[in-house]
Amino acid sequence: MEAFAVPGLPEFEAGDDVATAIESACDLREDDVVCVASTIVSKVEGRTAALADYPAGPRAREIAARFEAQTGDERDPRFAQAVLEESTDLVMDEPFLLTETRFGHVGVNAGIDRSNTGGAELLLLPKRPSESAERIREALSVDVPVVVTDTSGRPFRHGQAGVAIGWAGMPASRDWRGETDRDGHELEVTVESVVDELAATANLVSGEGDDGTPVVVVRDWTFGDHEGSENLYRDLESDFVRQALREWSYEEA
Amino acid sequence: MEAFAVPGLPEFEAGDDVATAIESACDLREDDVVCVASTIVSKVEGRTAALADYPAGPRAREIAARFEAQTGDERDPRFAQAVLEESTDLVMDEPFLLTETRFGHVGVNAGIDRSNTGGAELLLLPKRPSESAERIREALSVDVPVVVTDTSGRPFRHGQAGVAIGWAGMPASRDWRGETDRDGHELEVTVESVVDELAATANLVSGEGDDGTPVVVVRDWTFGDHEGSENLYRDLESDFVRQALREWSYEEA
Repeated sequence: MEAFAVPGLPEFEAGDDVATAIESACDLREDDVVCVASTIVSKVEGRTAALADYPAGPRAREIAARFEAQTGDERDPRFAQAVLEESTDLVMDEPFLLTETRFGHVGVNAGIDRSNTGGAELLLLPKRPSESAERIREALSVDVPVVVTDTSGRPFRHGQAGVAIGWAGMPASRDWRGETDRDGHELEVTVESVVDELAATANLVSGEGDDGTPVVVVRDWTFGDHEGSENLYRDLESDFVRQALREWSYEEA
Repeated sequence: MEAFAVPGLPEFEAGDDVATAIESACDLREDDVVCVASTIVSKVEGRTAALADYPAGPRAREIAARFEAQTGDERDPRFAQAVLEESTDLVMDEPFLLTETRFGHVGVNAGIDRSNTGGAELLLLPKRPSESAERIREALSVDVPVVVTDTSGRPFRHGQAGVAIGWAGMPASRDWRGETDRDGHELEVTVESVVDELAATANLVSGEGDDGTPVVVVRDWTFGDHEGSENLYRDLESDFVRQALREWSYEEA
């Protein structure tokens, strides 16, 4: 397997054609997976915004006030409002905003960026990243999977790592259920989130700064002869961590 | 960057020399990172065990009984005892055992395996995986980083992905603090967990089944000119998710 950053891509703006830019910069092959940073998907889709677009409602003002009281740091209630409007579920509202975005990803601040935004105050995540991946995939001249990537913090572990937030042309996971190990025992580990692992690989190569390398091609990797699963995001019923967080209050801790 | 599974490795047993086996099977280069699955590290370190080694105490019996009452599935209280003895902190005890291992990793069942164990009932994680990584590293003839990998489930997201549990010869993370994006703004994302991303890459290549490919070489990847950080595991004070989980009870939910 090989992974390389597509060289010499331009700065992307609303309306730009990512697929054509990629194919102008490198020759894709049929065994490639194209990993595209969500930042450029958001930019071409015009997902920039200003704080003034989000007049703060009572909930956002309350969250911002509580945050300031606890941390001493200022928080713009309009930013909290933007996060709430991008989210369907508030998992934690202190000491930071952890929410479920409209497409199912649980992340801090609904993934809204304030750096590398192309000059805007806010850069929102793509509205439906798997549909974005599919659009890029359809515009490519080669039949390859496309993964839209972001970086995300993790409970229990320091730092951030690359994760997938959208994908097309391949399943999200390899399903090893029913397969056996070298001793002939059924495997305990059953579902491998390959799109997240591809995104982690892409992030290793591109780096957090994006540095003009927002697209990484993973070459000569195969999904293999396994069942696939389309689920990447847990639903609330099966996610005990999320259930616990919804009931937890920072002030009581 | 390139990643390949080291071909033709033997089945490992207690006392075997992993470094020599790797170098007999491939020529390492100075720009390599060697990723070794924790299963073989555990095997060569003799970390196999039997359920009979863990006579269940009252706590383990209570956990097993509660598990059976709630799920209808049988749980051997000796297995719960083994998990408790490998752990320093019980993060959740239902509906599954989530604990902090003695070296800081938070995982289900303290990472104790019951498949791909080389015939033993239980395969425990290495006692101090970073020391294991350092020992392998010192035994290699080339000066390269070594990462000991495992697979781990994640809150919020389906499936498992490769993660690092030990590392030597490189920092755990790249620290981008103070660096700027293309617009000249300071980056919001500050710490990139590169050892986890390397482990995810290795798992993409080796697959969950291990299939005789427990060692993956990542070639031609560079840490780059960044500060490094040695922290991979969050401590309890900074981990709000873990705080919430400790206070949460499945029965009340």
